[in-house]
Amino acid sequence: MANIVDLLSFDNIVFRNLCLWIGILIVKMLFMSGLTAFFRIKNKAFSSPEDLMFGGKKAKAPKYDDPSVERVRRAHRNDLENVLPFIIASFFYTLTNPTPFLAVNLVRVGALCRIAHTAVYAFGPVPQPTRAIAFGIPLAISVYMSVQVILHFA
Amino acid sequence: MANIVDLLSFDNIVFRNLCLWIGILIVKMLFMSGLTAFFRIKNKAFSSPEDLMFGGKKAKAPKYDDPSVERVRRAHRNDLENVLPFIIASFFYTLTNPTPFLAVNLVRVGALCRIAHTAVYAFGPVPQPTRAIAFGIPLAISVYMSVQVILHFA
Amino acid sequence: MANIVDLLSFDNIVFRNLCLWIGILIVKMLFMSGLTAFFRIKNKAFSSPEDLMFGGKKAKAPKYDDPSVERVRRAHRNDLENVLPFIIASFFYTLTNPTPFLAVNLVRVGALCRIAHTAVYAFGPVPQPTRAIAFGIPLAISVYMSVQVILHFA
Repeated sequence: MANIVDLLSFDNIVFRNLCLWIGILIVKMLFMSGLTAFFRIKNKAFSSPEDLMFGGKKAKAPKYDDPSVERVRRAHRNDLENVLPFIIASFFYTLTNPTPFLAVNLVRVGALCRIAHTAVYAFGPVPQPTRAIAFGIPLAISVYMSVQVILHFA
Repeated sequence: MANIVDLLSFDNIVFRNLCLWIGILIVKMLFMSGLTAFFRIKNKAFSSPEDLMFGGKKAKAPKYDDPSVERVRRAHRNDLENVLPFIIASFFYTLTNPTPFLAVNLVRVGALCRIAHTAVYAFGPVPQPTRAIAFGIPLAISVYMSVQVILHFA
Repeated sequence: MANIVDLLSFDNIVFRNLCLWIGILIVKMLFMSGLTAFFRIKNKAFSSPEDLMFGGKKAKAPKYDDPSVERVRRAHRNDLENVLPFIIASFFYTLTNPTPFLAVNLVRVGALCRIAHTAVYAFGPVPQPTRAIAFGIPLAISVYMSVQVILHFA
């Protein structure tokens, strides 16, 4: 069995690729916070009474049903439900000493699909099943990687 | 103080056990996404206008108050709030060089309780305090492990 | 390039500081679960029918619009959206072998701001832009650290 020092090494292309895409995915997720704030201010749809001051005189009460804000929030929650498990699964999958070509491309494809998911969800609507595909592929990859972790450490 | 190479070693039963249960918990969490999709289609309760096509002719508007969908979503959000911190806490707790018997069983019991939590919440309702117990035990374990991390590294 | 064994070493002040603040942030996040439960029971605002038994005779139906409960829940969700990415970003940022003084203080300031964010949100309202600042600083730090990770591993 490969040593963890070798697996989590900067010489291991699987680990380097993982770190790169985790950095990209975290930036993508944090971007959702900024996008929510943007739409809240633009559409004067604030969730807390003290935030109304950002909206000028026209914002008189909290508003929870602005379509743009709620769309971004659903995309953001979907990130929490899927990107964070994807990151954790791919980190521990790296410890199972996977074939480099497979591991590098699973992480790459999964991450790119999540970026596509944000594009078609937060800036949509785009006709289905576009979003379903961008959602399903990373989900399947996460399950695959987790099952590999389970089999490796069972 | 034990070396991190020894602690994050495949020879360390605490670390092996941790990896195994993290794999199981991630699969369990991802399962919630599928379950939500299942109930959304079954009950024709979609959140975005473009998803209505999955519901056939009877789905004419988004629906946010389907009891089955909302129940799974609450269970899923509870996972985000508790399973992800549990995973992070148990990873760093492993670095404090805990007693193997204690560490292995804390992770095992915490993870099993989270699986029970899903069972009684998403497929419930089951009379309380069943869910409160399945929620409280992993929460207490997470707090204990985090406090050990704080004490170790302070 | 520094070896990962040296970077994730207990002799590395950056890593020790990271572990300490991750422990503190996890306890802070878990505290939100307890706070939600406290306000749900105090204000008899339960989300699931089977929870009504905790409210005595006066709790007759689920209640989703209690201001105190919803305020804590928004603060909690904001933690999921920001604290978890902050933890992941700072872990991988540690692997880029950053200047110790900078790295230690970025983690410290970011974590303290998140604690302040909870204080002014969950126990608020406090006039803006207090919360916006406590939200923006850790967000900027997370983006900075993630970009460093991307540049390092690209």
